[in-house]
Amino acid sequence: MYSSGIIVYGGVKMIVLKVKDVDISSGGYFIAIINQEDARKLDLFALDRIKIRKGRKEIVAAVDIAESKKAVPQGSIGLFEENLAALKVKGGEKVSISYVEKPDSVSFIKKKLDGRHLSEAEMREIIQDTVNNKLSQIELSFFVSACYTHGLNMDETISLTNAIVDTGDQLDLKKSVVLDKHCSGGVPNNRTTMIIVPIIAAAGLTIPKTSSRSITSPAGTADTMEVLAPVTLPLYKMKRVIKKTNGCIVWGGSMSLAAADDKMIKVRHPLSLDPTGLLLASIISKKKAVNATHVLIDLPIGNDSKIKTKKQAENLKNEFMAIGKKIRMKMHVIFTDGSQPIGNGVGPLLEARDVLWILKCDKRGPKDLKRKALHMAHLLLEMAGKNSGSKLAKHILESGKAYEKMVEIIKEQGGKEVDPDKMELADFSFNVRAQRSGRVRHMNNLFVTKVARIAGAPKDKRAGIYLYTHVGNKVKKGDVLYTIYSDNKEKLRHSVKFANEHKVIGID
Amino acid sequence: MYSSGIIVYGGVKMIVLKVKDVDISSGGYFIAIINQEDARKLDLFALDRIKIRKGRKEIVAAVDIAESKKAVPQGSIGLFEENLAALKVKGGEKVSISYVEKPDSVSFIKKKLDGRHLSEAEMREIIQDTVNNKLSQIELSFFVSACYTHGLNMDETISLTNAIVDTGDQLDLKKSVVLDKHCSGGVPNNRTTMIIVPIIAAAGLTIPKTSSRSITSPAGTADTMEVLAPVTLPLYKMKRVIKKTNGCIVWGGSMSLAAADDKMIKVRHPLSLDPTGLLLASIISKKKAVNATHVLIDLPIGNDSKIKTKKQAENLKNEFMAIGKKIRMKMHVIFTDGSQPIGNGVGPLLEARDVLWILKCDKRGPKDLKRKALHMAHLLLEMAGKNSGSKLAKHILESGKAYEKMVEIIKEQGGKEVDPDKMELADFSFNVRAQRSGRVRHMNNLFVTKVARIAGAPKDKRAGIYLYTHVGNKVKKGDVLYTIYSDNKEKLRHSVKFANEHKVIGID
Repeated sequence: MYSSGIIVYGGVKMIVLKVKDVDISSGGYFIAIINQEDARKLDLFALDRIKIRKGRKEIVAAVDIAESKKAVPQGSIGLFEENLAALKVKGGEKVSISYVEKPDSVSFIKKKLDGRHLSEAEMREIIQDTVNNKLSQIELSFFVSACYTHGLNMDETISLTNAIVDTGDQLDLKKSVVLDKHCSGGVPNNRTTMIIVPIIAAAGLTIPKTSSRSITSPAGTADTMEVLAPVTLPLYKMKRVIKKTNGCIVWGGSMSLAAADDKMIKVRHPLSLDPTGLLLASIISKKKAVNATHVLIDLPIGNDSKIKTKKQAENLKNEFMAIGKKIRMKMHVIFTDGSQPIGNGVGPLLEARDVLWILKCDKRGPKDLKRKALHMAHLLLEMAGKNSGSKLAKHILESGKAYEKMVEIIKEQGGKEVDPDKMELADFSFNVRAQRSGRVRHMNNLFVTKVARIAGAPKDKRAGIYLYTHVGNKVKKGDVLYTIYSDNKEKLRHSVKFANEHKVIGID
Repeated sequence: MYSSGIIVYGGVKMIVLKVKDVDISSGGYFIAIINQEDARKLDLFALDRIKIRKGRKEIVAAVDIAESKKAVPQGSIGLFEENLAALKVKGGEKVSISYVEKPDSVSFIKKKLDGRHLSEAEMREIIQDTVNNKLSQIELSFFVSACYTHGLNMDETISLTNAIVDTGDQLDLKKSVVLDKHCSGGVPNNRTTMIIVPIIAAAGLTIPKTSSRSITSPAGTADTMEVLAPVTLPLYKMKRVIKKTNGCIVWGGSMSLAAADDKMIKVRHPLSLDPTGLLLASIISKKKAVNATHVLIDLPIGNDSKIKTKKQAENLKNEFMAIGKKIRMKMHVIFTDGSQPIGNGVGPLLEARDVLWILKCDKRGPKDLKRKALHMAHLLLEMAGKNSGSKLAKHILESGKAYEKMVEIIKEQGGKEVDPDKMELADFSFNVRAQRSGRVRHMNNLFVTKVARIAGAPKDKRAGIYLYTHVGNKVKKGDVLYTIYSDNKEKLRHSVKFANEHKVIGID
């Protein structure tokens, strides 16, 4: 209210400063550093915006105020790489500086922080200014915080989703049916994507799958696929792979499919904030950006999974369905068992081997993962109206067509066929054995994850663990429950220590 | 919850990088820039914390991730001035980098964001980490946001106040009675402090007054006092002035009396957020930092003032009184008229002239300001139990003792006595006249402020306006309502234009 007390007329409040070249990037958002004496002349406060002009070029930057002469002396302005490039100036040259008002989006963020709802135009303005580097990380933090504490209603979530899609790149395949899937995560291995994509693609349907890398898990699908083929493809190469094979399995982060979302994820990270509205917009915008028409959502429920309760899952399902209806994207949401790892390998290479065994119909392929992937592929085919009975997915897998398709995709992405039996495992390993006989009652996803990560996953592709049992199985004292793999003795030692000190697998 | 998936053992995940000297200050908080490939090696995410070690020196910094080789090539680390100084390294030298967990204070911020209350220990940890540059601006933004949306209860406000005081400098005068005052602001001129301080000091009581500079007003008390004497004094000089004269009028910002508060104010600025809890802690911590025992709080109420309604003022009063009781600081809160400027001059020099006229008992001294200041001085004397009847303040002022004391304070702070009649006014001026005859019904504080600021106040000390009338007075068409002063023809022209286009003074 009182900040409206500032009125500055163009041309009146302007000073000329000499550029000091800061030979580094400020990370997108424009920042300029000026001395506190110059700041006072312009009535500037830290984080205020200034217009910097050189000839006909001008940019708007946030002000950082240097208190010492050493940092930035009076009469100078410190400009980062991005600013220098945008203005085409060099150190020592002069630029003119004037105050500019905050963009309207700042007041929309305040509005949301005050608990009011944002219109589609307001949401769009916030996202546009985010992508165009007009909002600082602090302002974006307040937006994320407002979405976290007040939530987003359906209309806001949709506005946000559309705004994210419209301000990012899009993959337009010009197909009337484009399939996609998403999993809420938190379950080790669970590498269904790498089985589903070749089945769907082999069935002649389009599935342009972008996946994430691990943040806190032992491997993301992108990390696991990377064992077999490059996953960092630019948009035009992704398109080429899909045109040839009907599908792909690439890292979503290598494209700007949702540039605004990436910036929000960055400020969400320090406090690990996952506001539902942002989460939904983040997921759905990525599906919309590849023009997906039918999307299967897998919500694994489990104590140590992302989604802990049926109720949580049901709420999320309702939101997905409602949004899907409004934006005309066919959604199908399934609840699956997230109480233990799905598959046996945990870590990029060990997971990739599980996948290859399944695709090659090798009996060592883990049955739980195979069953789940087949079920999901079946559902996707059904959604697309392409199911002759319920056997199509199974037929494609068991006839070897899915494997053939996978090899095709691997090669198109720039990799080559690998025999799972010739994959070299890590140099060091340790067998963790049952301390007693009994039945496996519980496997802790978080502890499984930690053991694998301490061993080196996902950075060390070969690191991780291999499970020989699952919940419900009987074990005898002395049986090997799982093997820890690591390329580094020290890491293996730490991993074994952690495994010994925590109840990774509960037997009674 | 899921971020606990990251476990990193000391010494295992460590890399060595070559320092790239970034010849600029990052503004306190440690930031280090590394290439995205190195970030992946360490499993680092933007804004994660790393420990940087050189020999026995080590610091913790937030990671910024450079995406291009040009910004920071692989194998290098960009370090700002503060980091270089703290580690005693130069460009080209090697440092070792490892991941460190977030400080506990981050989880306390999350807790508050989730709507839960913080304990004294948790609040203290947040403030300590703020002062020690262990929290990023983003994390601090989330804290401010949490305080804004969920509010602080009494205990939290007190914990916050105490934590701010304990982590900043303190002025320990070893006196059993120390007086202070505070005004919520928003009323042009209203320069009571510069009359109250000499009266109280002349009465033999201690009043170590720190004041603010203008942010959005035509002048802060510090800006106006600066017309007469330096106000940017280090703590030891402030102490010396008080020892000699019993009082002072200095700029609070020149000391670190509330370092944590300054950092929070910085992130509150972009959205102009004034969460009550933070506001109270901010005000009271500054009083506690000078060991004030008796504090008079002036809350001017008016449509165009900071506090708009009696109800708002009463809520604030209750909070002040309750906190005062708990921390054993005697508080007295008064509601005053904030509907129009108090005094005639608006802008540093014109306000200082009003003050000097009042102190010198010149009949040109504005009566409203004199009356208000005398009333407040009287209340303060009464709070300190030092009032022989109600006439002491008036006697000190009218006997010339207050003026003498003011001259003493001015000289001790490094200024010299100035004759108000020899003060040089600005080079250009313009008389704004009544367009009609009638009674003055309304004066708009915001418009008065804007006219004065556009004319150049507070940067140009002589700029501002001088009012010849107040609400309730009769005026005739053609009477001069006020004169605008400016040192710059262009600014004067803009100011006159604004005055003509807005109802600064309403007559009917």
